Amino acid sequence: MEKLESALRQSLGDDRVYTPEQFGKRATSYWDSSPYQARLLLQPRSTAEVSRALALCLEHRVEVVTQGGLTGCARGADSRADQVAISLQRMRTIEEIDPIACTVTVQAGAVLQEVQEAVAAQGLYFPLDLGARGSCTIGGNVATNAGGTNVIRHGMMRELVLGLEVVLADGTIIPAMNSMLKNNAGYDLKHLFIGSEGTLGVVTRAVLRLRPAPCSRDTAMVAVQGFGDICQLLSMAQSRLDARLSAFEVMWGDYYRTVTEPGWHRPPLDRDYPFYAIVESRGVDPGPDHSSFMNLLEELLGTGVIADAVIPKSESERESLWAVREDFDAVTARQPTYLYDVSLPIRHMAQYVERVQSAVRASWPGGTCLVFGHIGDGNLHLFVTPGAVGEGQHELSDRHVYTPLGDYGGSVSAEHGIGREKTPWLSVSRSPAEVELMRLLKRSLDPHNTLNPGVVLGDGFGA
Amino acid sequence: MEKLESALRQSLGDDRVYTPEQFGKRATSYWDSSPYQARLLLQPRSTAEVSRALALCLEHRVEVVTQGGLTGCARGADSRADQVAISLQRMRTIEEIDPIACTVTVQAGAVLQEVQEAVAAQGLYFPLDLGARGSCTIGGNVATNAGGTNVIRHGMMRELVLGLEVVLADGTIIPAMNSMLKNNAGYDLKHLFIGSEGTLGVVTRAVLRLRPAPCSRDTAMVAVQGFGDICQLLSMAQSRLDARLSAFEVMWGDYYRTVTEPGWHRPPLDRDYPFYAIVESRGVDPGPDHSSFMNLLEELLGTGVIADAVIPKSESERESLWAVREDFDAVTARQPTYLYDVSLPIRHMAQYVERVQSAVRASWPGGTCLVFGHIGDGNLHLFVTPGAVGEGQHELSDRHVYTPLGDYGGSVSAEHGIGREKTPWLSVSRSPAEVELMRLLKRSLDPHNTLNPGVVLGDGFGA
Repeated sequence: MEKLESALRQSLGDDRVYTPEQFGKRATSYWDSSPYQARLLLQPRSTAEVSRALALCLEHRVEVVTQGGLTGCARGADSRADQVAISLQRMRTIEEIDPIACTVTVQAGAVLQEVQEAVAAQGLYFPLDLGARGSCTIGGNVATNAGGTNVIRHGMMRELVLGLEVVLADGTIIPAMNSMLKNNAGYDLKHLFIGSEGTLGVVTRAVLRLRPAPCSRDTAMVAVQGFGDICQLLSMAQSRLDARLSAFEVMWGDYYRTVTEPGWHRPPLDRDYPFYAIVESRGVDPGPDHSSFMNLLEELLGTGVIADAVIPKSESERESLWAVREDFDAVTARQPTYLYDVSLPIRHMAQYVERVQSAVRASWPGGTCLVFGHIGDGNLHLFVTPGAVGEGQHELSDRHVYTPLGDYGGSVSAEHGIGREKTPWLSVSRSPAEVELMRLLKRSLDPHNTLNPGVVLGDGFGA
Repeated sequence: MEKLESALRQSLGDDRVYTPEQFGKRATSYWDSSPYQARLLLQPRSTAEVSRALALCLEHRVEVVTQGGLTGCARGADSRADQVAISLQRMRTIEEIDPIACTVTVQAGAVLQEVQEAVAAQGLYFPLDLGARGSCTIGGNVATNAGGTNVIRHGMMRELVLGLEVVLADGTIIPAMNSMLKNNAGYDLKHLFIGSEGTLGVVTRAVLRLRPAPCSRDTAMVAVQGFGDICQLLSMAQSRLDARLSAFEVMWGDYYRTVTEPGWHRPPLDRDYPFYAIVESRGVDPGPDHSSFMNLLEELLGTGVIADAVIPKSESERESLWAVREDFDAVTARQPTYLYDVSLPIRHMAQYVERVQSAVRASWPGGTCLVFGHIGDGNLHLFVTPGAVGEGQHELSDRHVYTPLGDYGGSVSAEHGIGREKTPWLSVSRSPAEVELMRLLKRSLDPHNTLNPGVVLGDGFGA
């Protein structure tokens, strides 16, 4: 390792190479305040430097963990004390905005919010959005195929990436910086790296697709009597609003009642319905968009698909509605509470949630499983609170949530990725043949297993 | 080969295995009337049969070419007399339509038009559409990442595929039949196979994404004085129509004048403008959608971005407008004429076309290069007519069209793929590092090079 350190200093310069004494005490990640670990922290300033760093680490057979904003939810960027961490935080240039082609070219360390703001200044819109926008980086968004709040309308990060530059484990630079919507000249290599959580290469630059900025926004919270009506509501919202449907968020009744307990949020609707949904439309034609939205609500009330509805009369009322869904401090106030991010076909959701809830109640008499989800995306978030403290209850909770997904073709990770945390559960969502093909790709692109080893495929898998 | 034939007959049954005497005289493809070649033609009826067939072909080291509707434009499915052809034409079941999740599950041999019609009968819409719809198969659409006429609004086939079942060269079945919009459980394997033209596996089933059926349609043909105005027109159409913009087709003046020569199409607008465009909007709100469209046109005329416009007053008038762009018999009446499908950033298009046109004129005094394109997708189609017959002129024409693309980050294949036909030109659009990574994937997934050998990567590349 001393040899590697001196080779890195010689190749990159001392001001790119930080020792634990230099980088000092910092948190492991946004989610974990335990001390950050790494043998060395590298901060390259160019793709060529990333390439030289990776080539040297491979030569010395030292493991490398790539880091963006350290906001990932599955421990995919946690480094250990014997590993080299490469942070892209000094490669954050927004290189070019092309208003005609509607693209932006950035270095991978660019922070999501800075990209959003830079393109907004030119009247354009980058649709990816998530809570970590102020810290997370484009490279991290690519590596984890980030989802967030606009997926139903604009897709996940994968749909927003036109081209990538990537450095492989041996330092080879793959300059796949396509900027066109159509390019069928051979295999589309960027998809290997999107969502592979840094295990196949380090993303250094990207060409992203932009959209026109929406200027209309219509929101309603509605109360619904059963899950069949939720499905009907989704169908009608899709067919009447089409691409304008920008949010379709469903809260199970228990979740709604918990976050509207006295002392928490004021309930916008009566508290005794089985389901609540927030429906939102965004478009570029405020008048007609509003009419379409109001016509839809009228039809939904008239046909009894929804039992009640509330429409915000101001921006602050809209924020209050959204806060019921987004601010779940009332749920996490009871500790421990375990948060899950799963996906499954919509038609199985009601049954799946009942199965998890009854398993939770069977294990812990005072336990709860509260649920909301981006239903239009097939994505549910579950909060399991055992209501007790005991050995092995986190693992038992994982089992209650993940195991039934296998029966429905569901996924143990809708948007957070597998990281290190969910590797034991990958096989619930992926067949042995799929996992073996993932391993084949890993062996082919990173034969010495130096890039983010253990992430996605688990520690049991090596070179 | 005799051993393989008898093993195939034993494993699949005689009624799945056809010899040249049995399959008789047929054309190589839609584009090539020369006689179809194959040592054997297999018509499996299930994924398990495809798996057994591939395993046996590998065991006997016999090359396999996968075939769908035989409408591909780049000779990617042409089989030779010493190869086994596998046709998916008996695997065309439309297995399930889920109106809530908006998905359809099909076998890969299902014909595109049959899928379109089956989902339309349930009020849904599968957006992929192209001229070959009555013959091309979903498997072929996946393998070539088909584009077509709705890309600007709904993306290419890749954006419409949620899950795939694929059989690898050794017969391993990869059951990646995801049906959710969000699934980040490990690498997204389907993208390996989409657009890889049958060289990495045989697609046997797919889960496709559906959309609400559009019910409004507004169309205009406009005349434009310069390419700068075309860019401005595109920007304004995108920001005013947003996701409703469903076609943005530009014809260079020479193309328009050729197809509106006396005896061909009646010219909807004066014939002396430098550019013409067809702009179309589709949505789900006929009244407001029409108003938005008319407001846009008024603004475009008022600001001088367009010089003239014509709006069809009936469905047959709309068809006549579209025929000017789609029916180019007047262009191909002069033979030979070579058709190209390239993409490049919009801002370079005017200069690129001028370069190609002047190279054509320099080579052939009477030569022409006529151009139209799906500009919003970055996609141009060029027709080069040397106006003379000579040795090597097709190859020279290729060079005039493809070589300059390298300077603009353009692609030698926007939507048709590389097939066998364009392999010599792959390196114009892809760097040596990209091609080497493609080869690494091919070697890893098909180590004996038995699947569609020579396609995409060229004959020089073997196991």
